[in-house]
Amino acid sequence: MLIVQKFGGSSVADAERVMNVARIVTEKYRQGHDVVVVVSAQGDTTDDLIDKANEINPHANKREMDMLLAAGEQISISLLAMAIEKLGCPAVSLLGWQAGFQTSSKHGVARIRKVKSERIRNELDQKKIVVVAGFQGLDKNEDMTTLGRGGSDTSAVAIAASMHADLCQIYTDVEGVYTADPRKIPAAKKLDEITYDEMLELATLGAQVLNNRSVEMAKKYGVELEVISSFTNRPGTKVKEVINMEKMLIKSVAKDTDIARIVVVGVPDEPGMAFKLFSRIAKAHINVDIILQSVGRDGTKDISFTVPKKDGEAAVAALRDYCDSVGALELSARTDVAKVSIVGAGMETHEGVAAQMFEALSDANINIRMISTSEIKISVLIDADDAERAVAAVHAKFFE
Amino acid sequence: MLIVQKFGGSSVADAERVMNVARIVTEKYRQGHDVVVVVSAQGDTTDDLIDKANEINPHANKREMDMLLAAGEQISISLLAMAIEKLGCPAVSLLGWQAGFQTSSKHGVARIRKVKSERIRNELDQKKIVVVAGFQGLDKNEDMTTLGRGGSDTSAVAIAASMHADLCQIYTDVEGVYTADPRKIPAAKKLDEITYDEMLELATLGAQVLNNRSVEMAKKYGVELEVISSFTNRPGTKVKEVINMEKMLIKSVAKDTDIARIVVVGVPDEPGMAFKLFSRIAKAHINVDIILQSVGRDGTKDISFTVPKKDGEAAVAALRDYCDSVGALELSARTDVAKVSIVGAGMETHEGVAAQMFEALSDANINIRMISTSEIKISVLIDADDAERAVAAVHAKFFE
Repeated sequence: MLIVQKFGGSSVADAERVMNVARIVTEKYRQGHDVVVVVSAQGDTTDDLIDKANEINPHANKREMDMLLAAGEQISISLLAMAIEKLGCPAVSLLGWQAGFQTSSKHGVARIRKVKSERIRNELDQKKIVVVAGFQGLDKNEDMTTLGRGGSDTSAVAIAASMHADLCQIYTDVEGVYTADPRKIPAAKKLDEITYDEMLELATLGAQVLNNRSVEMAKKYGVELEVISSFTNRPGTKVKEVINMEKMLIKSVAKDTDIARIVVVGVPDEPGMAFKLFSRIAKAHINVDIILQSVGRDGTKDISFTVPKKDGEAAVAALRDYCDSVGALELSARTDVAKVSIVGAGMETHEGVAAQMFEALSDANINIRMISTSEIKISVLIDADDAERAVAAVHAKFFE
Repeated sequence: MLIVQKFGGSSVADAERVMNVARIVTEKYRQGHDVVVVVSAQGDTTDDLIDKANEINPHANKREMDMLLAAGEQISISLLAMAIEKLGCPAVSLLGWQAGFQTSSKHGVARIRKVKSERIRNELDQKKIVVVAGFQGLDKNEDMTTLGRGGSDTSAVAIAASMHADLCQIYTDVEGVYTADPRKIPAAKKLDEITYDEMLELATLGAQVLNNRSVEMAKKYGVELEVISSFTNRPGTKVKEVINMEKMLIKSVAKDTDIARIVVVGVPDEPGMAFKLFSRIAKAHINVDIILQSVGRDGTKDISFTVPKKDGEAAVAALRDYCDSVGALELSARTDVAKVSIVGAGMETHEGVAAQMFEALSDANINIRMISTSEIKISVLIDADDAERAVAAVHAKFFE
C-alpha cells in the first residue's frame, strides 16, 4: 500500500516527539508499505518567525513572509529524516518545490495547481521513506509560496490524490472525530467512520479537526482519510464518501461560541431589501452563516443573521448608513450567543430528527433564538450561557 | 556600478543589526548603484540548528544536514529584504538555487560549479536590491548543498565574478586588514591595499579575515575585494592583483598559536625517508606547514614539522610504526609553540627583510626554532610564551 501520513507542528515540537513520529512512520514502513510523510513546522516556529518579521517590518511584503515561513518546515523535515535514519530506515526530506508542489502566486494563501510527484515516486522506488514539507510550494516565477492556515493537511491530501495513495492519515492530538467534544461531554464516543460532507459541516461548526480545504480536496479526488492520534496510535476515524448506513444516523453534536448575532429591526417590507443589506456585508468581506427574516408586519420586517464574532462590529458599521437611510428602528450586534448543531448524513431520510433535538432543548428549558437546517445538519442559536447544557442534553438524547 | 556586498552572521544577528545592514545597503543603492547583498545565517542560528540535529541523530547524513542548515540563510535573507523595504527601497530575497548556484554534490563542503545569474540580473533590471543566501546551492540532483566554512564569502565572490561586478565588499567586524592584530598591538595600522597573494598568506597564518577559497576565486577571476566594517562603515582594505608599489614593503605581522610541532629524531640518513614519513601524514589527511630537516650526522638525521594543533596526536599516531621500524630515537608532539610571520609582496625584490626580522627577535632575546620562507612571507617558529613579545618587536621594527 502507498500511505501518506501527516503530522502537525505539535507532533514534532521537540526531539522526543520527532523520535515518536519516526517510530510511527518506520513501523508502517517495516510492514512493507510505501510511506510519504508530510510535516508542518515545529511547535511555535512559525509564530517565532512571524515575531522576528514584525520586529523588523510589521508590513512585510507577503513574498518575503513566505520565504521566511517556509524555513520552518525545512527544519522539521530534515530533523525527521535524521530521526528515521537513526531508527535504521532510509529517508529523504523534500521541500515543497522538490516534491513537485506548483501553486498560484497568491503569497500566504496560495492554491495548489499541481503536484508533479515524479521525484517522490523515484525516491519511493529506491525504498526510501519520503519526508515532505507541508504548507509550501513554488509559483510560476520560482518563488516560494505558502498555503495558509491548515495548509499541511492540504499538502498531504494533494500528494495522496496525485499519487493515488491507498490512505491518507492525518495525525493530530485527538484520537479521531467524536460525537461531541470529549473534553466537555465525558460520554462522547469516537466515530469509526464519517462522510466527507459530515466532516465539512463539523469543520464549519468550529469542531476544527481537519482543515476544510483538505476535506474538500479529499472528497473531490476520493482520497480516503483517517484522523488519528500521534500520541496513542490507536485506530482513528476514517473519512470517506460512503459509509456503512447501519451506523449511527447522527454523527456528532458541536458547539460554536465564536459568533455574533446581528439584528436589524424595522426594515421596509419591500423587494430587494435583503439583497441591499447583504451586498453591503459581502463588500465588507464578512461571511454570513444563519439568516432569519421575520414575516412582514406594519409594512416592516426584521432581519437577523450571524457572523464570526470578530466581524460583529464591522458588520454593524457596514450597515449603519443603510439602516439610517431606510429608517430601521434598531441595529445591534450581540455576542452572548452560541450555535449548537447536530450533523449526520442519514438525517435527510429520517423524520423526526429535528423534533428530537428541539425536545431535548425544551426539556432542558433552553430557548431557541434561530434555527438553520441543511440536508445533513441542524443548527440552533441559543444564549451562550446555555451552550454547555444544550450540548449535553442533545448528546444524551442521541447517543446515551 | 554593480556592487556585491557580503554580511556575515554577526552583522545580522538581531533586528537592530539587520536594520543597520539595510541602511548600508540602501545608501549604496540610493547613490545609483546596482546592489547584490549576500548574507549568512543570523548569529548563532547555524550552531542552534546543529544542536537540534545532534539531539536527534549525532551521525545525521550530510544531505539532511545541508537541508537543515540552509534554513538559516533563508531566514536572514527574508528579514533583510523586509528591512530594506521598510527603508523604502524595493528588494527581493533569493535562495542559493534561485540565485543560480550550481554546486558539486559533496554535502557540507560543496564546490561552486557555476552561477547562472540570469535571475539576479533580471531582478536588478527591475531596480531591486537583490538579497542572496550565501553558503548554499543546489547540486545536479536538485538537492540543497552547503559550501562549508566561510562559504558566504565565496558565494559573494562567485556572484561578483559571474556578473563582472565592479567591487565585492566583504563586511566584517574589523575595519580592514591591519599590519598586526589591533587588539594586541595598539600601534597596528590599517592597510589601504593588499594583494591577493598577501591576503592568502595572511589567511594561512591564522589572521582569518577572509576565507581562503574566496580570495583564491577573487584572484582567479580578478574580482576586486574590499574588507570593511559593518559597524563603522569607513573605507576598509582593498584586495587586488597589483597595488601601488610605493606602499609599504611589508604588509602585516601575524601570529598563529594553533600549531603542534612534531619532532622525529634519528631517522636513517637515506634517500626516500622523508617521502615515507610524509606519505603517512598525507594518508591521515593532515596538512603539514613548515618542514625542517637537519643535516645528516652519524648516519641519521632529524625531521621536524608543524601541523594544526588538533592534528598533533594523530600525526604522532600515524608515524609510530614507521619510527619503530626505522629505529628512530624520538617521536614527539609539542604544542607550546607559535608561528610569527611577516607578509609582503615587495619582499622578494628587497634584500635584508629577513635579517631585519631576525634582528628584532634577537634584540628581544627570542629563540627561533624553525624558519620558513616563501616569495612573500617569512615565518619563524618560537616558543608560545614569546609570541606576543615577538609580534610587538617585529611590528615595531617595520611599522613604528
